[in-house]
Amino acid sequence: MLKRYLLAPGPTPVPPEVLLAMAKPVMHHRAPEFAQLFGEVRNDLKWLFQTGNDVLTLASSGTGGMEGAVANFLSPGDKALVVNGGKFGERWGKICKTFGVQVVELKVEWGYAVDPQAVAEALKKDPSIKAVYVQASETSTGVAHHTKRLAEVIKPYEGTILVVDAITALGVFDLKTDAWGLDVVVAGSQKAMMLPPGLAFVSVSDKAWQLADKAKNGAFYFNLKKERESQSNNQTAYTPAVSMILGLQEVLRMLKAEGLDAVFARHARLAHAMREGVKAAGLSLFPKESPSDALTAISAPGSVDGQAIYKNLRVQYGITAAGGQDHLKGKIFRVSHMGYMDTFDVILTLAAIEMVLKGLGHPVKLGSGVAKAQELLMA
Amino acid sequence: MLKRYLLAPGPTPVPPEVLLAMAKPVMHHRAPEFAQLFGEVRNDLKWLFQTGNDVLTLASSGTGGMEGAVANFLSPGDKALVVNGGKFGERWGKICKTFGVQVVELKVEWGYAVDPQAVAEALKKDPSIKAVYVQASETSTGVAHHTKRLAEVIKPYEGTILVVDAITALGVFDLKTDAWGLDVVVAGSQKAMMLPPGLAFVSVSDKAWQLADKAKNGAFYFNLKKERESQSNNQTAYTPAVSMILGLQEVLRMLKAEGLDAVFARHARLAHAMREGVKAAGLSLFPKESPSDALTAISAPGSVDGQAIYKNLRVQYGITAAGGQDHLKGKIFRVSHMGYMDTFDVILTLAAIEMVLKGLGHPVKLGSGVAKAQELLMA
Repeated sequence: MLKRYLLAPGPTPVPPEVLLAMAKPVMHHRAPEFAQLFGEVRNDLKWLFQTGNDVLTLASSGTGGMEGAVANFLSPGDKALVVNGGKFGERWGKICKTFGVQVVELKVEWGYAVDPQAVAEALKKDPSIKAVYVQASETSTGVAHHTKRLAEVIKPYEGTILVVDAITALGVFDLKTDAWGLDVVVAGSQKAMMLPPGLAFVSVSDKAWQLADKAKNGAFYFNLKKERESQSNNQTAYTPAVSMILGLQEVLRMLKAEGLDAVFARHARLAHAMREGVKAAGLSLFPKESPSDALTAISAPGSVDGQAIYKNLRVQYGITAAGGQDHLKGKIFRVSHMGYMDTFDVILTLAAIEMVLKGLGHPVKLGSGVAKAQELLMA
Repeated sequence: MLKRYLLAPGPTPVPPEVLLAMAKPVMHHRAPEFAQLFGEVRNDLKWLFQTGNDVLTLASSGTGGMEGAVANFLSPGDKALVVNGGKFGERWGKICKTFGVQVVELKVEWGYAVDPQAVAEALKKDPSIKAVYVQASETSTGVAHHTKRLAEVIKPYEGTILVVDAITALGVFDLKTDAWGLDVVVAGSQKAMMLPPGLAFVSVSDKAWQLADKAKNGAFYFNLKKERESQSNNQTAYTPAVSMILGLQEVLRMLKAEGLDAVFARHARLAHAMREGVKAAGLSLFPKESPSDALTAISAPGSVDGQAIYKNLRVQYGITAAGGQDHLKGKIFRVSHMGYMDTFDVILTLAAIEMVLKGLGHPVKLGSGVAKAQELLMA
């Protein structure tokens, strides 16, 4: 018998209360009861996104939200600055190219955060750039970019919007959509929002809507203007994922009961304990700077294969973590702190990592990382 | 946000597969589909009890099964030898007295197992004793009595049956009902059977049925003869707890897939790691001998109040363990290894105990007990 632990950076564990809410009978989406549900959810999403803007809900994975955040704001031939510091930065570039957008790529070495000054210089050099695409948290490297400072750089450019992939950031750490001036923020259900995969969210500022008015791309399913029209009436343009929205209602109630600051503090505390535990166990963090509180990317030590660590966690101990992607495959492995996580998720993850490494012949002192996390997570 | 961990010696965690099975639509209990379900369950219960005898299922807590195991076999004025080495031994005595049974009490100091020789002497001294009542595992002290050796002592007495409370033993460690000659074995759903509370089980040998034929007590709801009549036709005398039996079907399938020896080995492995972890953390086990693999009873160290440990585990860390009962209140606390438990339940329990003790000012080295358990639980 092997219990299963979902400690990958998405999907993340869904609380029992949320699973129960999702098991409620499916209601018809054109009935008043759905409009009432969706009205509550829409309000609470604004609270979570820290915005007065509409937050649109889409029945898709986060990538659908990313596509919408390209197709609705830019026309073929428009120029976009894409910050590419990992797998998901790369994805922004691919989506832009699919929609005929000219990509000015700002490459960032994996493990580092983009220098806001480099973005400032790129904009200065080419003010025709209409949008800057970035990740608040780059899941492939475990690095958080400096969203607030990027917003400060971009704000003065009246024709340029900042589009933030916050899929592994929203509900993890502070992102002040309105106060900082984040024009488009994309999120997904299966990370800190503690739901199964299946919903994407996009908030859109006035500045971004103005750009959308001029854009000529062919968005049909991810047509955000059309969604805004429907959703402002507590409806959706196409059939919504009703059970997911029932779960979302419960998630938002739980998060509101905890409070946004407490939610961020919890993630920060767990992520900090994990990082210190990793170091105390003699391992190295992969990020060279600005580690994200969403997940911890750990370098495979010495001659140990990172994929073997990832595999043994799953096969021997029932823990689903994540390996490395592309050139980091075998070099790193990643564990999540997002959403429905507590003290003992960190402790058991560290315990399992130590046991796997020892099993693979790496000299690690059992309990060394655990003890550090215990110390930091004392109530 | 505090996740909840159910680590008390009952109720124990219910696997998601079992919760899902229990969420199936309620069927009518006089319909053929129930008879089919109950037929499968009855067969599998025999496998779990290691018996060819009928195993009767009752809609009650384990105590209902204990009552049935007194009321059906003895008449007012009959004599019973009751082994009282803890709270549940004491309960056998109380039930016997309620039904007018004369109790010959064999007191055993809490923390010790009964000496089979003492039972032999009591029977020799008074061969009119018709039944010996004992716990296979005494939950209040964490001690396992020597069931097999007790059976050897009692077997020669043709008019005397051995009645075993196996509520925290069945599915934890080996109990060979037929091979050892355990006449009546009582179990409950909410321990190693991984179900919520609500079902009791009683297996009855031919020797015990012969005694039942002469017994004159007034059992109505817990009338085992009547249940045998109904249940041999895959029905029950009174309304069965249908959803619980749907869950039980899933539990028995899971246990059969794992195999009885593997189930026992898993409990032994986890309990051993817990005991060694407790000692490595500088703490003492409460049992002076024969610790049960169902749970570990730990002595509160030095000046620390055992109730404070129990309370802080729950309030600070979300872990429901158990305190001590009666004169052990404040002196011990108890954690379970029964049922749906794995490596990380042991590890997180030890981590939490260390953190609670340190929080209460007791000098404990964080990670010391955890490291021992990690070593013993390596895959």
